[in-house]
Amino acid sequence: MKIAVMGAGAIGSLFGGLLSNSGEDVTLVGRPEHMATINNNGLKIDGVSGEHIIKVKTTSNAGDLDKVDLILLTVKAYDVDKAVREINSIVGTNTLVLCLQNGLGIVEIVSNTIKEKQIIRGTTTNGALFIEPGHIKHTGKGDTIIGRMGGEVDSRLEEIKAVFDKAGFPTTISTTMNEILWNKLLINISINPFGALTNLPNGQLRELFANSMKIVISEAIEVAKNVGIELDLNTAIDKTFTVQFNTKNNRNSMLQDVERKKKTEIDFINGIVVKYGKIVKVPTPLNSLLTSLIHGLEQSYMS
Amino acid sequence: MKIAVMGAGAIGSLFGGLLSNSGEDVTLVGRPEHMATINNNGLKIDGVSGEHIIKVKTTSNAGDLDKVDLILLTVKAYDVDKAVREINSIVGTNTLVLCLQNGLGIVEIVSNTIKEKQIIRGTTTNGALFIEPGHIKHTGKGDTIIGRMGGEVDSRLEEIKAVFDKAGFPTTISTTMNEILWNKLLINISINPFGALTNLPNGQLRELFANSMKIVISEAIEVAKNVGIELDLNTAIDKTFTVQFNTKNNRNSMLQDVERKKKTEIDFINGIVVKYGKIVKVPTPLNSLLTSLIHGLEQSYMS
Repeated sequence: MKIAVMGAGAIGSLFGGLLSNSGEDVTLVGRPEHMATINNNGLKIDGVSGEHIIKVKTTSNAGDLDKVDLILLTVKAYDVDKAVREINSIVGTNTLVLCLQNGLGIVEIVSNTIKEKQIIRGTTTNGALFIEPGHIKHTGKGDTIIGRMGGEVDSRLEEIKAVFDKAGFPTTISTTMNEILWNKLLINISINPFGALTNLPNGQLRELFANSMKIVISEAIEVAKNVGIELDLNTAIDKTFTVQFNTKNNRNSMLQDVERKKKTEIDFINGIVVKYGKIVKVPTPLNSLLTSLIHGLEQSYMS
Repeated sequence: MKIAVMGAGAIGSLFGGLLSNSGEDVTLVGRPEHMATINNNGLKIDGVSGEHIIKVKTTSNAGDLDKVDLILLTVKAYDVDKAVREINSIVGTNTLVLCLQNGLGIVEIVSNTIKEKQIIRGTTTNGALFIEPGHIKHTGKGDTIIGRMGGEVDSRLEEIKAVFDKAGFPTTISTTMNEILWNKLLINISINPFGALTNLPNGQLRELFANSMKIVISEAIEVAKNVGIELDLNTAIDKTFTVQFNTKNNRNSMLQDVERKKKTEIDFINGIVVKYGKIVKVPTPLNSLLTSLIHGLEQSYMS
């Protein structure tokens, strides 16, 4: 399969590298220094999938790409808009775009430019860490789920699943992608900003925030209900507490962004609950406060 | 007047120093290094009230004090409990204790040990900065209000007012101290945690948090109503926005505590709204979230 990875950071390089390693025709699109190092020395991947030095094509300019079968869109959520405009010229009639971002609202952005039937949504629990230019660590094996927002399944999805499975990413095709994304969102909204604002690992959040987390999740479930998604409060609360316990020493990705004084994905996590809430007229005061607090923090270190 | 200042940090040393300078018999009780430097070189006060080197008695042990007419209690809110137990032995039948802390709930703590009729509550907008041991800067002149929680006025309050006025602290006696403290609280709850959590000066908060601030104040006003204090929402919102504008470059005191990795007074600011809210069964979800977020931050740097 001819594949381009748009946004070859940690997770993009991991997928692109192992897909290339298993025989696919992959080109990575990423930052010049990372791409140049891979060109010169190959892409080093170590960690849970063993140690590999992988030869893979690279470019820093999406415009240089040929038409491909699949574009793996792995830029940060807030860069999707820009990335989609950059890849637009190389999206052919048969090209599929697989969006692997955290959060909600991604397909809405992509579909401004790309036809909805060419968009696939995905989510993965594989962990990857950017060690240095040319070097990625696969920190945890996980599951990958792909599907169309409308739930349709066809042979193209099966082909992607086969290619991913072969490369070492066990993949499931889902007909309820929207519900899967909402369920994942409920976990992210009840962990990420709490850790990011307090500088605490996941395991220390529950004792401080159990009540606030329940309200944050309740607000989102009420919003989801009004956009046609039924979710269960108790299941979601059990799930987030289980995830917090199982990852108790982890500093969540939003906290890591704050520590590195980088922009966060808050607008696609708690912020999207606020945005949808306004549309369906469901109040979301706690999600709104958390979103603004993270915006304030970003303002303090980015301006 | 025979006066002891219990907790001679910045504001306590300012009051104690200028009261001594105007002829009162003052003893400061504070940290050993600060007290020793004052003993050796006098207390240096500079800033808006001119430059002074003031000879004033000191001790680090409240038990060494003689019985006094007035104890100025200027420890941090969270140290009031401990401080009151330390001064208990030197509180005579005629001793008054004037509590100058930020926030609410102070007199409740003091009255566990001291008779209510001997407790005076005060609030001041004088600004003071601890420069180094032995040296305080008077950063801003302000108003001081004193009164009893029950509203009673007598000659003892008039005497304190006269002594404060003479020392350069223009003072008003109030018969509605509780309402004054609540109104001040509404400003603190809508500024302090927002700045402390985002690392932003007062002037940058309104644009991010106007809605959340309104809810935070509304929750407190509903709690106040249920404990018998009527406050007006629009007045309070105008007031906090005015204060934020007039102090736009200031980093609030809670943010300064966070920057210095010190315990904050959150339990007596947003936390007291939550505490009273539980008692009168008024929900306070935003004040509760802000309180827990500050507790989380404290946990991250104090444990």
